[in-house]
Amino acid sequence: MSVHSKLYEGKAKILYTTDDPEVLLADFKDDATAFNAQKRGSIQGKGNINCIISSKLFEQLEAQGIKTHFIDSPAPNQMRVKAVKIVPIEVVVRNIAAGSLCAQTGLALGTILKQPLVEFYYKNDQLGDPLLTRDRLFLMELATLEQVETITHLALQINEFLRSFWQGCGITLVDFKLEFGLDSQNQVILADEISPDTCRLWDSAEADTNRRVMDKDRFRKDLGNIENAYQEVLQRVLQAVESQN
Amino acid sequence: MSVHSKLYEGKAKILYTTDDPEVLLADFKDDATAFNAQKRGSIQGKGNINCIISSKLFEQLEAQGIKTHFIDSPAPNQMRVKAVKIVPIEVVVRNIAAGSLCAQTGLALGTILKQPLVEFYYKNDQLGDPLLTRDRLFLMELATLEQVETITHLALQINEFLRSFWQGCGITLVDFKLEFGLDSQNQVILADEISPDTCRLWDSAEADTNRRVMDKDRFRKDLGNIENAYQEVLQRVLQAVESQN
Ligand SMILES: Nc1ncnc2c1ncn2[C@@H]1O[C@H](COP(=O)(O)OP(=O)(O)OP(=O)(O)O)[C@@H](O)[C@H]1O
Ligand SMILES: Nc1ncnc2c1ncn2[C@@H]1O[C@H](COP(=O)(O)OP(=O)(O)OP(=O)(O)O)[C@@H](O)[C@H]1O
Ligand SMILES: [Mg+2]
Ligand SMILES: [Mg+2]
Repeated sequence: MSVHSKLYEGKAKILYTTDDPEVLLADFKDDATAFNAQKRGSIQGKGNINCIISSKLFEQLEAQGIKTHFIDSPAPNQMRVKAVKIVPIEVVVRNIAAGSLCAQTGLALGTILKQPLVEFYYKNDQLGDPLLTRDRLFLMELATLEQVETITHLALQINEFLRSFWQGCGITLVDFKLEFGLDSQNQVILADEISPDTCRLWDSAEADTNRRVMDKDRFRKDLGNIENAYQEVLQRVLQAVESQN
Repeated sequence: MSVHSKLYEGKAKILYTTDDPEVLLADFKDDATAFNAQKRGSIQGKGNINCIISSKLFEQLEAQGIKTHFIDSPAPNQMRVKAVKIVPIEVVVRNIAAGSLCAQTGLALGTILKQPLVEFYYKNDQLGDPLLTRDRLFLMELATLEQVETITHLALQINEFLRSFWQGCGITLVDFKLEFGLDSQNQVILADEISPDTCRLWDSAEADTNRRVMDKDRFRKDLGNIENAYQEVLQRVLQAVESQN
C-alpha cells in the first residue's frame, strides 16, 4: 500500500488517500483538544492507544455482524479504513447523565437513565456542534428518515455490545459519540473511532467522582494522570480480548 | 375584585393573587430584558401596549374556539387571567428562520420554512432555556405524551390563525413563543402573553433587514425607534380588530 496525499487533518487524526480510492489511512495523533478546540494539549501515547483500542472494538463489533470502516492496522497509530461519506451528525448514546446533558437538563451527574438515550448533534465545529431535534435534522437534510432509523438502531445495538464489553473490563460505559458514513454502496456503516477520547468511561470499582474517570474528561477537567488512565484502559481492553481466545 | 398579595414577579409581568383563588391579576411592566436578562432596559408604554395586544389576540383566539387564560382587562396594563400551573416548556413556532435557529443550523436569516416548525425549550432561566428534544422532555417529565400532542396541535392551530391575522395587519409572522398551562380541570390552555416581546414581526411592506423589524429584536439588536415600532403594531392590531365589526 503506497500512501498518497494528506486528504484531511482533523483534531485527532490525519486521513491520507492510498492507491486504492476506496481505502484511506487514518493516522492517530497525540494532540488533544476540548471545548471545541478552545483548550489544546497533547496526551503522550494517545495516538497509539486510541488506534489500538478502536481497532480492537471495531473487530469485536464486526464479529457481532455490525459493519464498520475498519480494514486493518498496519502500525500502532495507523488504521486502514474504508473511505466513506461521513453523515454530518455526531451520534451520542447515553446510559448515565454527564456533560452537556446535565448542564442542559439539570439532571445530576451520574443519574442512571431508565433507557439509553440516543441523541444527534450537528457535526459543525463553527456552530459548536449544536444539539439537533429530529425536525431540525430533516429540515437541514442531514440524513434521510431511513438513514436516521438505521443509525438509531445501530447505535442502540452498539451500545448493548459495548456496555457489556466495558463491563467485562471493570469499566462503566457512561456515554459515547459515534460517527457513521455511507460506503461505496451507499450503505450506512460505523466510522471514525471508539476510544477514551470519544467515550466517558468510569472505573466500576471506584466511587470517587474524580478518581473513577478514565477518559478525556481527565483532560477537560484537569484531573491529572491522563496518560496513566489511557494506558490502563488499553491494558484492560487487551486483557479482555485475550481472555476470549 | 380585591387584589391580594404579589404572587410572582417575572421579567415582564407581576402576578397578583385575587379574592378568587382561580383568578390572577397580571400587571404588564415597561421593563425589557434580553439574552436571559443580561441586557436590561425599559420600553416606554410597553406594559400597556403588550397587555392590549395580548388581550385582543386572546379574544380573537377564544372566538376561534381556542381556550386561553384570558378573562378581561380591567386597566390598560392589567389582565385578569385564570390561574394555571404553567407547563415548564417554552413552545416556539417558526415560519421563517431567525434567531437561535439560524445560529444553530446555519440557515440564513429569512429562509422560509416549507412547513411551520414547532420547537420546545426548557423554561429555566438558570439553564438558559435550552432546546429540548422529545426524548429529553419526557426524560425530565416536563409533560405527558398526551399533553405534548395537544400542545403541538394547538400551537399549529394558533400559528395558522395568527399568521393570517398579522397578515391582515401588513405584518409577517416570523416566529413566536407560547406558554401553556393546566387549568383547575387539568386542561391544557394557552397562557402568558402574545406581543411584540414574544413574536418576531416584520413589516410586510419593508424589505430592509433592520427597518422591517417591529418587535423586541429592535431592543436586542439596538435598532432604535423601539417605542414607535410597538405603537405601530398596536395601532395596526386595533385597526384590524375594528374593521371586523
Ligand atoms: N472512514 C472514513 N472516511 C472518511 N472520513 C472519515 C472516516 N472516518 C472518520 N472520518 C473523518 O475523519 C476526520 C478526522 O478525524 P478527527 O477525529 O481528527 O476529526 P475531528 O477534528 O475530531 O472532527 P472534525 O470532523 O470536526 O474535523 C473527521 O472529520 C471524521 O469524521
Ligand atoms: N395564567 C397564568 N397562571 C400562572 N402563571 C402564569 C399565567 N400566565 C403566565 N404565567 C407566568 O407568569 C410569570 C411572569 O411572567 P413574565 O413574562 O414576567 O415572566 P418571565 O420573567 O418572562 O419568565 P419566567 O417565567 O422565567 O419568570 C411567568 O413565569 C409566566 O409563565
Ligand atoms: Mg474526531
Ligand atoms: Mg415572560
